[in-house]
Amino acid sequence: MNKEAMYKLSYGLFVLTAKEGKKDNGCIINTAIQAASAPNQLSICINKANATHDMIVNTGKFTVSVLSQAADFELFKRFGFQSGRDVDKFEGYEACRRGENGIYYVTEGTNAYISAKADHMIDLGSHTMFIGEITDMDVLSKEPSVTYEYYLKEIKPKPEAVGKTENGQTVWRCKICGYEYVGEVLPEDYVCPICKHPASDFEKIVR
Amino acid sequence: MNKEAMYKLSYGLFVLTAKEGKKDNGCIINTAIQAASAPNQLSICINKANATHDMIVNTGKFTVSVLSQAADFELFKRFGFQSGRDVDKFEGYEACRRGENGIYYVTEGTNAYISAKADHMIDLGSHTMFIGEITDMDVLSKEPSVTYEYYLKEIKPKPEAVGKTENGQTVWRCKICGYEYVGEVLPEDYVCPICKHPASDFEKIVR
Repeated sequence: MNKEAMYKLSYGLFVLTAKEGKKDNGCIINTAIQAASAPNQLSICINKANATHDMIVNTGKFTVSVLSQAADFELFKRFGFQSGRDVDKFEGYEACRRGENGIYYVTEGTNAYISAKADHMIDLGSHTMFIGEITDMDVLSKEPSVTYEYYLKEIKPKPEAVGKTENGQTVWRCKICGYEYVGEVLPEDYVCPICKHPASDFEKIVR
Repeated sequence: MNKEAMYKLSYGLFVLTAKEGKKDNGCIINTAIQAASAPNQLSICINKANATHDMIVNTGKFTVSVLSQAADFELFKRFGFQSGRDVDKFEGYEACRRGENGIYYVTEGTNAYISAKADHMIDLGSHTMFIGEITDMDVLSKEPSVTYEYYLKEIKPKPEAVGKTENGQTVWRCKICGYEYVGEVLPEDYVCPICKHPASDFEKIVR
């Protein structure tokens, strides 16, 4: 099996948000699709390691803000490169509004939001898939949506090759988010602390 | 609710194939994603009206060929604009090969194929979602994948505005595939005979 085939699948990019009690949170996902037309249903997949995951399990509600080509890297860093367990991602953030379900959607760098119930929760191991009827949605701008390919080419900064560290240690870089792990051997069960992707998504950096 | 928000979701395009007994069949879908990474699982959604749907229900196996920018409109017509109940879509077709699971994948106008088991079948009304572990996959070319947006802009022929017919009747056009329905009123429960999308995806054509 050639795992490179997986990289041929096309994705958009989204801020997935939830609210549990007084806590607001959100993360970046690439797997929001219309799963059925009658009734109109949205599906999303999210890694279980994300704090947002547990909030959706507990509340059964979520909102997807569709990222547009107007999104800057700061937006990806805010929602994708830190954990809601450590920081309040919405603290001091004004580019958001509460939808009918009470959950924040993002109003800048986005072109639409879609809110849904979690009628189905399917345990898939590393991820849970949530599928449910759409409860609210609107268009926010005419900017084209960001595809994952566009993000890699146009938004994500190109990291410089680092090779070995000053101490001569080997560096492994996550192909998804760019996080770097230092050590001769990358443990097989290693999971990226930033984007939660597995060891198979890391590459050894050679100068 | 502004249903236009649904059009902001990004998709790739795929030939979804199955084999039941001696019958080979396939159709076009836009909803193939990696649903989880450990174990590595693919999910697809397909309208129940497609013949391929029933074949996957019965056999529990399917293959997705990822369409590339080298795909021409003939390929979309072959797999998307006719039914496997009426024709043998693979008759005389040479741009295909059988994968490990015995199902054809498409070798021209594609850049990869991914085969999976249907471990989960989720009934969503108009569509069924199938999710399962990947059993085989490979890269076929370096051509970029087709997004649905690219297909609409670069591959699908632009239909001319037809307005009313010679007899003065109103024409409704499917926004998805371009099929035209003639009649003053489009029935609410109408389903496009070509792409199976509902009446809400039709627009009244005004000259």
